[in-house]
This record gives sequence, C-alpha cells and structure tokens, in this order.
Amino acid sequence: MVFDQQLLHSLIRAIPNWPEPGVTFRDITPLFQSPKGTEMIINTLAERYRERDITHIGALDARGFLVGSPLACKLGLPLVIFRKPGKLPYDVIREEYALEYGSAALEVHTDALKKGDRLLLADDLIATGGTLCAAAKLCRRLGAEPVEATAIIDLPALGGSKRLDSEGIPSFSLCSY
Amino acid sequence: MVFDQQLLHSLIRAIPNWPEPGVTFRDITPLFQSPKGTEMIINTLAERYRERDITHIGALDARGFLVGSPLACKLGLPLVIFRKPGKLPYDVIREEYALEYGSAALEVHTDALKKGDRLLLADDLIATGGTLCAAAKLCRRLGAEPVEATAIIDLPALGGSKRLDSEGIPSFSLCSY
Repeated sequence: MVFDQQLLHSLIRAIPNWPEPGVTFRDITPLFQSPKGTEMIINTLAERYRERDITHIGALDARGFLVGSPLACKLGLPLVIFRKPGKLPYDVIREEYALEYGSAALEVHTDALKKGDRLLLADDLIATGGTLCAAAKLCRRLGAEPVEATAIIDLPALGGSKRLDSEGIPSFSLCSY
Repeated sequence: MVFDQQLLHSLIRAIPNWPEPGVTFRDITPLFQSPKGTEMIINTLAERYRERDITHIGALDARGFLVGSPLACKLGLPLVIFRKPGKLPYDVIREEYALEYGSAALEVHTDALKKGDRLLLADDLIATGGTLCAAAKLCRRLGAEPVEATAIIDLPALGGSKRLDSEGIPSFSLCSY
C-alpha cells in the first residue's frame, strides 16, 4: 500500500484547547482504530528502516509502544522499552530532562542495549524532543548508537526535530502540523 | 512456529522482592527483546482469535499496548486503548476500581466502541483482574461485548482469572506462575 498523506491526516483528530487553553492536541486514537491506517504507517516505517542496519527498536512510554511494538514485530527486531521512573524492575539507568515547568525522567534496563547496537527510537509525536533526547542519551550511555528518531507526527514549531538534529540524531516523521 | 512454553518461560525474568518485599515480579522485557519470542506469542494469539468473530482489540495502558498493538496489526483489526485518567483527550467514560490500598480508574473514548462490537481485551498479566474487569465494564457501557481477556501471564493465586470468569469474561493466558 502506497503512503497516503491525506488518509493519515484524516485519521489524526485535532482537539482544540487540550490539555490547556491555546494548545491543539493531535489525537492518534482514530489512526489506531483504523486497520488500514495502522498497516500503512507500520509498513511505511518498516520499508524505510529495513535496509538501514538497525539492530533494535526503542519505544517510548506509553504511546510510543503503540508504534514501536508492531514495527519491531514487522522487522523481526528486539524491542527495548524506555519508561517513566519506577516502572522497570531490573537494574536501570536514568536520564532527567527539563519540562516547561519542572522536570521528568526516563529509564532503561542496563542489559537492554550494548556497544555496537544501532537503535531506532519510536514515538507517536515529536514536540520539544525532550523525551526522545533523553532516550538517545540513555542509549549512548550503554554504548549503543541512536541511529534515528521516528514519529507519526512532527510539530516543528516546538523545535524538537531541530533539537534532535543538533544532538546528532536525525529524525523522520510521517506528517507534521 | 509451534508454541514453546519452555522458550516463553525462559524469556520471563523473575524479580524477587519487587515492587515490595515478598512479591516476585514477572518481567516481560526479555520477551520483547527476543524477536523469536515475540513472534511466537503474537502468532499464537492471532491463531487463537482469528476465527472468533472478534471485531476490535482492546489494549490496556501501558504494557498491554506492547501485546495489543502488534496483535491488532496481525489480525487487521481496530485497536482501542484503555488509559489511566487524564490521558485520553476526547469524550471519555470512566470506571473506578479498587486497589489493595485506595483506588484507580480507567478511561476509554466514547466513540471507540459501539453496540455489536466484539472486543478482545489484551494485557501483559492477569493479577487481581481489577483493570481488566474495569475495561470490560467500559466496553459493556458502550454496548459492546468483551468476548475474552488475554494475557501473556496469569497469576492464578491472585484470583484475577476466576474473578473475570465470575463476571462472564473468559480469560486465556500463555503461561502461569
């Protein structure tokens, strides 16, 4: 199936003034409720990454799991999950990152990646890029390379893809707003 | 690939005394880091449910997304996500449920299911069954039928599968401890 930008946009619902006034949230639940839309995005990403010597798919808690898990299955690659603090039960490393107000953190199991691994990071959306950058740092601390960050949606006005680029991580999204 | 119980057990890591003393946590991250293991569980579930007139896969926040999303892709079915409060941006209904200490709640979008839909609920683990029962109730409130609840792991001593059964929801797990 050919990638159909118009179909993709029709399956992303704009929610005005959510989670706060002035913000328009991009809701991907209609996309995942569409088998045709889901197949299209997973196949498009699989095609893009099949010949790129990726060794692992990294999925970000929690909507990134929706993208990363079927993509890892499709490509026959190991899935590494990056989670909010306190969710992973084994030995972890943690990376803190700034939010608009306050800070957050991301963790990964220390045995999830090793030197020489080439990771594709997957999430639903690139906004400020804070979480993806934290995941890339965790990846590097384990000796692995974050080859690219991919998402369904990019919000370039929020600067995330530019920030990822400045940290040496190319990014690729299927659509932008 | 034939279902290999021994392979599955080898990919589930026991974490003693986590999240609290006396509890052994079953960690599924090694399973998802194994392409062979992941393919086996997703194919086994897909085979089981292919001829069951399931119309939707329901995935529970957040580890349920790891199972539900590739299963929905494999079966070509819509994926409905059940989330913790405040995560879904459109009109929702909410179901509260009791925890050992205090309570929690689960939400689903009101347009995610309708009368006549037949939902398979997917999660990583059946423990007390509280979250899966809440999801089943949400499903029924929207007029849809929770046909079965499936998980990678059942912990029968915690009573979840029995409780689901008493509420009219059969359950099926790939292994138990």
